[in-house]
Amino acid sequence: MQVIRTNRELQGLADAERGAGRRLALVPTMGALHAGHLALVEAARRRADRVWVSIFVNPTQFNDPCDLDGYPRTWDADVAACSAAGVDAIFAPAAAEMYPDGAETTVEVGSLALPLCGVARPGHFQGVATIVAKLLLAAKPHVAAFGEKDFQQLAVIRRMVRDLGFDVEILGVPTVREPDGLALSSRNLRLDPEARRQARVLSRGLDAARLAVAAGERDAARLLRLATDEIAKAPLAAIDYAELRDPTTLAPAPATLGGAALLALAVFFGPAAGAARHPDTVRLIDNCVLRPTPHPLEVDPR
Amino acid sequence: MQVIRTNRELQGLADAERGAGRRLALVPTMGALHAGHLALVEAARRRADRVWVSIFVNPTQFNDPCDLDGYPRTWDADVAACSAAGVDAIFAPAAAEMYPDGAETTVEVGSLALPLCGVARPGHFQGVATIVAKLLLAAKPHVAAFGEKDFQQLAVIRRMVRDLGFDVEILGVPTVREPDGLALSSRNLRLDPEARRQARVLSRGLDAARLAVAAGERDAARLLRLATDEIAKAPLAAIDYAELRDPTTLAPAPATLGGAALLALAVFFGPAAGAARHPDTVRLIDNCVLRPTPHPLEVDPR
Repeated sequence: MQVIRTNRELQGLADAERGAGRRLALVPTMGALHAGHLALVEAARRRADRVWVSIFVNPTQFNDPCDLDGYPRTWDADVAACSAAGVDAIFAPAAAEMYPDGAETTVEVGSLALPLCGVARPGHFQGVATIVAKLLLAAKPHVAAFGEKDFQQLAVIRRMVRDLGFDVEILGVPTVREPDGLALSSRNLRLDPEARRQARVLSRGLDAARLAVAAGERDAARLLRLATDEIAKAPLAAIDYAELRDPTTLAPAPATLGGAALLALAVFFGPAAGAARHPDTVRLIDNCVLRPTPHPLEVDPR
Repeated sequence: MQVIRTNRELQGLADAERGAGRRLALVPTMGALHAGHLALVEAARRRADRVWVSIFVNPTQFNDPCDLDGYPRTWDADVAACSAAGVDAIFAPAAAEMYPDGAETTVEVGSLALPLCGVARPGHFQGVATIVAKLLLAAKPHVAAFGEKDFQQLAVIRRMVRDLGFDVEILGVPTVREPDGLALSSRNLRLDPEARRQARVLSRGLDAARLAVAAGERDAARLLRLATDEIAKAPLAAIDYAELRDPTTLAPAPATLGGAALLALAVFFGPAAGAARHPDTVRLIDNCVLRPTPHPLEVDPR
């Protein structure tokens, strides 16, 4: 397994592999790899002959310097995990390679960047769109895999790829969860044991809404309330947002659900969770897409 | 010579040509082709096995709707010129192909977009950077050629390509001029005969400054004054800007020239040229890079 450090080297390898008729997949990560990332690798492997993982903690997507400083770095374990997963190459550029001296160019995705995590993290999705554009230009993949856990990020990347015309398939991969339902995230490492235990309320909130939809509930306010009531059971939790949105445009969902709706949650956990910038506070996100199927009595009999 | 209308088709052709080991060149244009464009084709031909010309009047780089409406469209002549010049394919997408419904993603280049033409044309260079990014993603060329006449555009594109890491060589091609020195431009077609005659003052202004630099003049204000004095000889001319700038960063040049400096001019021509939005007023730009070589008496004798 190669470790590649420069755009030029990766582009040369991409040209050679493409010239030999091989399909390339890229899995962009910020390291601190866990089973969620490995699910991306596995999904990518099914679509490509070569799977490359990029490991780059992108400074421009951290609005909070504490968050950047506290982001876990686990290089040796990451290399071992990639190797064991059959990854063909790791792309691990230095910051100066991705942001050359004087770099000012950014990619802006418009309205998709504004709601949900865009409120608490101004500039975050500009940073995400810009670094993903650079990674796609460096690796020239046929397919790139991203987790559905970061749903807004996935929507932003799909929009950027469509709008700019990148010749790449964006693959969304379902969220991998702990046995108690907590979505895997590098940030989970920063939860103390009690916060970790309570963090299961996120997925329980999603489950409550999903079950209610299956039972016929269509009222958006009542569905949201089911989710937030679950979260309220955790004393260490403080809700950043809990919203129902259109899964593609991220516009607010209607008061009565007609089609699919994204239920998106962001919750602070830890001591004095209300104070978002406390260094031991961890912000977790989770989501599911609620898919109302017509209730038998609602089906038009014609 | 093929005419290609969709990104997907062009990307497929690019992959096939690259797979066969051929080098690709793209010459992005807005049509209304003249000898300046054909010089781009010729320069591109020397670097590539296939030369593709894109013809797309990009709506997002026109801040003034009159200017967009008045932009010359000469499709049949353009096709004939490309064919005669040995162009291998024309890429002529519809607006909806380059800007799909709901497209919101833009490429921002930062400070290079602000001075010079950025002042009179807000949003122009965002539009340029965005469409050039899309064209590079569509054609996947090894080299793309742009005219030095649009010097700030060339600087913006070089910056974008460097910052985002596009795997493409950007080729700047010297300005082609009429016998009287007027830089070729599609906009020249809109000058009435008297304005056309007077428009030669732009290149005369550049020549005056260049000659003075060759004679040892280094004072920025005096050099600018030589250029603007020439332009003042044309009663139909009204200066938009006349500035000396760093050729790479576009920062203001020092009061006494040390190294190379861009002399950039933008001048309105026509009836009531001061009223920039008069429909018959034409805004022309021209530039040269002044390259002071050390005066013999200035050379350090050691």
